[in-house]
Amino acid sequence: MADTNTNVRVSLPAVCFVWQIAMIILFGVFIRYDEESDAHWVEFKREHNITSDIENDFYFRYPSFQDVHVMIFVGFGFLMTFLKRYSFGGVGFNFLIAAFGLQWALLMQGWFHSLDPATGKIYIGVESLINADFCCAGSLIAYGALLGKVSPVQLMVVTLFGVTLFAVEEYIILTLLHCRDAGGSMVIHAFGGYYGLAISWVLYRPNLHQSKRLNGSVYHSDVFAMIGTLFLWMFWPSFNSAITDHGDGQHRAAINTYLALASSVLTTVAISSMSQKTGKLDMVHIQNATLAGGVAMGTAAEFMITPYGSLIVGFCTGIISTFGYLYITPFLEKYLKLQDTCGVHNLHALPGMLGGFIGAIVAAAATESVYSAEGLINVFDFEGSFANRGVGTQGGFQAAGTCVAIAFGLVGGAIVGLILRIPIWGDPADDNCYDDEVYWEVRVFRECCFPGI
Amino acid sequence: MADTNTNVRVSLPAVCFVWQIAMIILFGVFIRYDEESDAHWVEFKREHNITSDIENDFYFRYPSFQDVHVMIFVGFGFLMTFLKRYSFGGVGFNFLIAAFGLQWALLMQGWFHSLDPATGKIYIGVESLINADFCCAGSLIAYGALLGKVSPVQLMVVTLFGVTLFAVEEYIILTLLHCRDAGGSMVIHAFGGYYGLAISWVLYRPNLHQSKRLNGSVYHSDVFAMIGTLFLWMFWPSFNSAITDHGDGQHRAAINTYLALASSVLTTVAISSMSQKTGKLDMVHIQNATLAGGVAMGTAAEFMITPYGSLIVGFCTGIISTFGYLYITPFLEKYLKLQDTCGVHNLHALPGMLGGFIGAIVAAAATESVYSAEGLINVFDFEGSFANRGVGTQGGFQAAGTCVAIAFGLVGGAIVGLILRIPIWGDPADDNCYDDEVYWEVRVFRECCFPGI
Amino acid sequence: MADTNTNVRVSLPAVCFVWQIAMIILFGVFIRYDEESDAHWVEFKREHNITSDIENDFYFRYPSFQDVHVMIFVGFGFLMTFLKRYSFGGVGFNFLIAAFGLQWALLMQGWFHSLDPATGKIYIGVESLINADFCCAGSLIAYGALLGKVSPVQLMVVTLFGVTLFAVEEYIILTLLHCRDAGGSMVIHAFGGYYGLAISWVLYRPNLHQSKRLNGSVYHSDVFAMIGTLFLWMFWPSFNSAITDHGDGQHRAAINTYLALASSVLTTVAISSMSQKTGKLDMVHIQNATLAGGVAMGTAAEFMITPYGSLIVGFCTGIISTFGYLYITPFLEKYLKLQDTCGVHNLHALPGMLGGFIGAIVAAAATESVYSAEGLINVFDFEGSFANRGVGTQGGFQAAGTCVAIAFGLVGGAIVGLILRIPIWGDPADDNCYDDEVYWEVRVFRECCFPGI
Repeated sequence: MADTNTNVRVSLPAVCFVWQIAMIILFGVFIRYDEESDAHWVEFKREHNITSDIENDFYFRYPSFQDVHVMIFVGFGFLMTFLKRYSFGGVGFNFLIAAFGLQWALLMQGWFHSLDPATGKIYIGVESLINADFCCAGSLIAYGALLGKVSPVQLMVVTLFGVTLFAVEEYIILTLLHCRDAGGSMVIHAFGGYYGLAISWVLYRPNLHQSKRLNGSVYHSDVFAMIGTLFLWMFWPSFNSAITDHGDGQHRAAINTYLALASSVLTTVAISSMSQKTGKLDMVHIQNATLAGGVAMGTAAEFMITPYGSLIVGFCTGIISTFGYLYITPFLEKYLKLQDTCGVHNLHALPGMLGGFIGAIVAAAATESVYSAEGLINVFDFEGSFANRGVGTQGGFQAAGTCVAIAFGLVGGAIVGLILRIPIWGDPADDNCYDDEVYWEVRVFRECCFPGI
Repeated sequence: MADTNTNVRVSLPAVCFVWQIAMIILFGVFIRYDEESDAHWVEFKREHNITSDIENDFYFRYPSFQDVHVMIFVGFGFLMTFLKRYSFGGVGFNFLIAAFGLQWALLMQGWFHSLDPATGKIYIGVESLINADFCCAGSLIAYGALLGKVSPVQLMVVTLFGVTLFAVEEYIILTLLHCRDAGGSMVIHAFGGYYGLAISWVLYRPNLHQSKRLNGSVYHSDVFAMIGTLFLWMFWPSFNSAITDHGDGQHRAAINTYLALASSVLTTVAISSMSQKTGKLDMVHIQNATLAGGVAMGTAAEFMITPYGSLIVGFCTGIISTFGYLYITPFLEKYLKLQDTCGVHNLHALPGMLGGFIGAIVAAAATESVYSAEGLINVFDFEGSFANRGVGTQGGFQAAGTCVAIAFGLVGGAIVGLILRIPIWGDPADDNCYDDEVYWEVRVFRECCFPGI
Repeated sequence: MADTNTNVRVSLPAVCFVWQIAMIILFGVFIRYDEESDAHWVEFKREHNITSDIENDFYFRYPSFQDVHVMIFVGFGFLMTFLKRYSFGGVGFNFLIAAFGLQWALLMQGWFHSLDPATGKIYIGVESLINADFCCAGSLIAYGALLGKVSPVQLMVVTLFGVTLFAVEEYIILTLLHCRDAGGSMVIHAFGGYYGLAISWVLYRPNLHQSKRLNGSVYHSDVFAMIGTLFLWMFWPSFNSAITDHGDGQHRAAINTYLALASSVLTTVAISSMSQKTGKLDMVHIQNATLAGGVAMGTAAEFMITPYGSLIVGFCTGIISTFGYLYITPFLEKYLKLQDTCGVHNLHALPGMLGGFIGAIVAAAATESVYSAEGLINVFDFEGSFANRGVGTQGGFQAAGTCVAIAFGLVGGAIVGLILRIPIWGDPADDNCYDDEVYWEVRVFRECCFPGI
């Protein structure tokens, strides 16, 4: 047994209580309902000549919000149940940190994006909830790289800083650089992926092989993980379209993502089968690389990338992601001392970065004939101080935004990693990683199979 | 083995056939499409100057309906798969009684709430389907207290009376007392919880310890239960907003519930961790108490409780519910002879009652400045014979409504419990409770694990 | 061990790559965004006096689309995880063939239904995505009959031809015969069911009993299958209403399907319980026959079948389907040499055929007083060259359409079956059917249960 102290009986409740109380106080000071969720809506409607309640943003976005919500809690959660003995930790800690993260995200994103200078308040509605869920996704992706090797207290720290960094880089990328990134290839996936990888790199465990017996799946844990995969896969069109423009914006983003994902599945299967002597498929690839098309379409989904363009994106990223699982993850572990439990490098970091650059190229190639004059302004939001920006310039800024996201992930992750090395967080020893018994009451792992029981 | 007769080969098919045929006859006499689901809609639109099909209530409520539907069948169903050997019964009997209950609910609720005196018909639309699902929830909650100890025939009886009692108490609370209870803290959770507890109390089994070996979870059954937990948790904002007012009402109810639930997760984790010597978490708490915030917001979600008010509600109920699992359930079993398999006292009865009183307080504290004059009338429906009711009075009636719900649950449950003690229902013996083999063909429980199999 | 060659290392990647590249080329030539998903939408709105983005078809159909999407991938996928050792193949190959099928379906359905002769392009929107998912369903149903006995390469062939045949029979039934079949009793279920049965009949394996040890479930695989059942059951109202008319059409189809499904559950339980000496329920029946009401309402759901009419349909089909599992499947296997792994005959073929005839009867019985004059025209689309068709004639054509669907299934399936008998597809030997180890890397089936592991 390990001599490390994994007792979190003081630290975990303390962190939960202190942070939740802080949330209540800060919400009391800052957060209010926006005009569409306030009881004054009936007056607002009259003043703005809105004739029907169906014009409330709730009806444009709530179905997509619920799909995103399922992705965050069931999608990410169950995707991380694949380990034979860490399913509680996978789905349970995902639940904890997302529930905290979304509250902190409402504040952080509110301060940066929607603080009303007149009243000093943040006004929230359904779009804020979607953005809060998105913001959590960054930290949940980082958790994928750390799965089984950190304590829940460390995860709360990862999330606190992750959400904070997210809000800052998002402000820089979307507001200052005026990039478009509706599905977050840059701000969510590239940032979250590199953030997790940098933390994991700082927390490198040379003796992790002592837990090797638990770093794998059993038959039914792989089936559980497929629940996560499929809910992510199915609802990704909602993820990429949830906060795009009403009308054609949401419509087109959903179609593009749907197509890219379908294409990823076929190339993932192809490469996975080619990688084995007898053509057998590997569940790790099917569970993860099939999603790469959705990640890579995060920026370009709302653009006029064309249906076949979407298929091409899915085609390439399915191949690249599967290759990542086959060759890059072992390479990173061996030569870069980087232990990446779920392979977030291959599913989020790399496809997210590619998605950022794909978005830059598609933006730079936009023309008035394809978008219509008004359409071009709508899609790229060429209004106000950005009214004269050209598509080429926009493409350059999109590429710059991708680099900003990666830089924030790497530098922020390295700093957070150093904080997590302080020996006060109750993390597990090298020989009991990937084991739920460290942080969970596990009454019976499995009954023995004598007849009659 | 037990000497009790658990053969339901005559009684179960008989009940299913007789009741289903009764449903067909009663539907034939009473149930018709409402004007929004009838082919005459095209005429109705023209007569009422409705310009677009999107004004059909279907588009306001169908996404929420489907979320509620998932909660009823997957949420409640999988939450009850946690027992090591009663997963079929958990999800399967939940399926059966909900499928029956929703039909009977359409009739009972129709007679009390929407019978057209001119034609003697009940006209149904999507809101009726949501209400029918809600009505089932009361009986499914009761099933939580009885899980593993009753026969499917008894559950059909529980549901028949549960739906009937529900429709009556709902009529008294919503129509006569003119309470607001969109998410059903009172009419669903407090009623359903106390109804189940009263039945369980009457059916007390002194020798239930003989089945103690099966009253617990195994590793993967706990993961299955997390599917139920998460779908309940994610879709609870839809539950509480499904039948609130179009526009700001649905919008605000969703936001408030989302926040309360997030807050519950953190305090549940905190208390669960504090309760163990080494700070380990208990899956029972995570599966259940994290949902208490949603239950407690059932009444107040549509009010202007403010975002931080919602966080406070979730904060407190997460603590209370977890304490319930730690201390109240054992206390009830030991001193009150009350066996509550799923702990519905802590998840539904107590948070539901609290939710009712929270609703009363928030209603009593409502002001015109916060709601606007029109908003106040809209939210509390101060129209017709209730046009002159003040918010203080409303608060009083809300509190009274909570008491009515509890009284209906306790008295109704006691009577139904007595009916279920008649020894004709095929319930299991004390030593084969919590065992699927009593009512299900279980071919192979688990293959033995010899290599090569 | 088998002497058959199940190596698919060349054939599977080759098929995936070649077909995916073909999709990209064909999409490049043919597929474009329709006016509601194109950036020109802002101009289109102005030209057509559309005042609000909420009129975009996306908001009418996207929530239903996502429900259908869940049914295709999680519903069908997890329903097929019930085998003890073929869960990877059930959910994984379902994923593969649906992801391919929907791309091919967009092309095939586009060529037949929405090719613009002026431009030679197919314009797609959310309704196209729903139809593509529907089209896949036919092939996934066929997979149910073949589960465990074919290679993934064979499944790709089944899907290629299945989608092609589907598009042709759909064109004949919906366009030439002008039938109504919104939920696809005829075009999806009857066709898909008989297609799978015909293939299975041609591929009859006399020595399949050598794999008998694996042709069954274990406890937790049955619980996994319930995930599939419930998501299919819950979202079937969305399936049958997804492409019906805006407004009352979608509303009514959802209500009718909801009721038929509820009724099916009770009669399935009744017959299942009656079939065992002690009244025990059989998971096979609960997982499958409870869905028969949804299949049988596929045609009639949008008609004015009345709520009690829906209950009657569910009542009868629940009984018939359960009887099918009890008596017809063994009969078919013994006397017709037809091996039907999932019993698609009882869930899809037979209820689909019945649904087609129910639709014919309900159509023939339609009257102006029930539908209103305009309603009748709307529901049956009596416009253009069909303006003078009477309801009796419509009923006749509906019945004829059902026969066309069955004929396409049987003849098409027989031909595809012959193609699949060519010994190049890598299908498993008779003694290793139903075994994931043939096509998947299965690292550890299950850990042994020694204490301390």
